[in-house]
Amino acid sequence: MAVLLYDGFTALDAVGPYEVLCRVPDVRVTTVAHERGPVRTDTGELSLTAERALHEVRRADVLLVPGGGNRGTVAMMEDGRVHAWIRRLHRHTAWTTSVCTGSLVLGAAGLLRGLPATTYWASRPYLSELGATYTEGRFVETGKIITAAGVSAGLDMGLHLACRLADERTARAMQLAVEYDPDPPYDTGSPEKADADLKALALKLLEDAAV
Amino acid sequence: MAVLLYDGFTALDAVGPYEVLCRVPDVRVTTVAHERGPVRTDTGELSLTAERALHEVRRADVLLVPGGGNRGTVAMMEDGRVHAWIRRLHRHTAWTTSVCTGSLVLGAAGLLRGLPATTYWASRPYLSELGATYTEGRFVETGKIITAAGVSAGLDMGLHLACRLADERTARAMQLAVEYDPDPPYDTGSPEKADADLKALALKLLEDAAV
Repeated sequence: MAVLLYDGFTALDAVGPYEVLCRVPDVRVTTVAHERGPVRTDTGELSLTAERALHEVRRADVLLVPGGGNRGTVAMMEDGRVHAWIRRLHRHTAWTTSVCTGSLVLGAAGLLRGLPATTYWASRPYLSELGATYTEGRFVETGKIITAAGVSAGLDMGLHLACRLADERTARAMQLAVEYDPDPPYDTGSPEKADADLKALALKLLEDAAV
Repeated sequence: MAVLLYDGFTALDAVGPYEVLCRVPDVRVTTVAHERGPVRTDTGELSLTAERALHEVRRADVLLVPGGGNRGTVAMMEDGRVHAWIRRLHRHTAWTTSVCTGSLVLGAAGLLRGLPATTYWASRPYLSELGATYTEGRFVETGKIITAAGVSAGLDMGLHLACRLADERTARAMQLAVEYDPDPPYDTGSPEKADADLKALALKLLEDAAV
C-alpha cells in the first residue's frame, strides 16, 4: 500500500486508513512523496516521513491519496508529475483510494470521469468540474476506486478495505484492535447536521490554521 | 500542546487528538521526544517527526501521551527520564492527557494513584497495579487529567478537550471540520461487542505486526 504524502496534506487522512490497514496480514505500507524525508501537514505543525520518492515506487496493490488544505490540494491538482505517477500505479492497483480532497487529485489525474465519487463536504461542487458525480456516503466504491468523505471518513473506508483485502472477520478484528467504537460528544460531523453559521465557523478555523 | 512521541508509539493515538485540536484558536501543537527527528511507530512503517527534544520543552498547557505497542509502552513505563519530564510538565499543565496505553505511562510516572482512569481495552487490568481504578468510558476526566480508551478514542477525547480549551461551538465546528460523522461498516469496536475469538484475533494481529 502506497500512501502519497505532499506538502499541506491532512495527517488524519493518511493515518486513519493506515492504522486500520497496516496490521491486515500481508499488507505492507509505505509513504511516498516527491522526495524522501519529512513532509509537512496543512497546519505546518506536524511532519510525517516519506520513506520513498515517487520514482522509487512503480507498483502498488493499494494507492491512497489523502486530502489536504486548499493550498496543498490545489498544488497536487496542478502537478502533472504526480498525475502521471498516479495513472501509472492505477493501471496495476487492486484498489485506488482517496480520503477527503484526495478525490480531487484523483479527478485531476483523470481517474474519475463519468464515475460516482465523494470528497470533503465543502468541496463537493468541484467533483462535477472533474467529470465525477457527487454521491452520498462515508465512502463510495466504483470498480476498483474508493473515495472517502472528509478526513475521519478514512477510518470507515479503511475498515471496508480491510474486508476487501482480507475478509470480514479480519476487518472486524481491526475495528476492535483500534477500539473504534465512536462516541463523539456532539453530533455535528456532517453538513446535514450543521447550520450555516457552524459551517462558516468550521471553514474559518480551517483557513485560519492553514499555512 | 506537547505531544510525546517515542519509539513504538501508535500513530492514530497522537494524530487523532492533534487533528481536532490543532485548529482551535490559540492552540499550537508541538511534538517532543528524547531527541529531535523521526520517531517510528509500533509497526515500524511510519515515522512522525519530533520537533523538539525533551529538555527543550519545560512547560505546556496541554500534555498528550499516546499509547504504543507492548514494547514501546513497556519501555516508556520504565523510562525515569520521561517520567521526570511528565511530572515536571504536569505541575503547570491545564490538562494532562493520554490515549490508549499512554495512561499506563502516566501511571508509571505516578500521576494516577487513587484516580479513576481508562486505557486500551486489553490493558485494563494493569491500571490497578499503578494505583488507578479502571472506569468505563471513551475518556475519563478527573481533575485536570483526562485518559482516553484505545487508539481511536483520542478523537472523542480531543473534541471534549476542544470544548474545554475554547467552547462548545468551537468543538462542534471542529467535529464538522474533520467530518467526524462516524459510520463504521461493523460494530465490533469494543470488547463488550466482540466474542473471545475476535478478541484473540485482534491481539494476534497486533502482535504479528509489532516490531
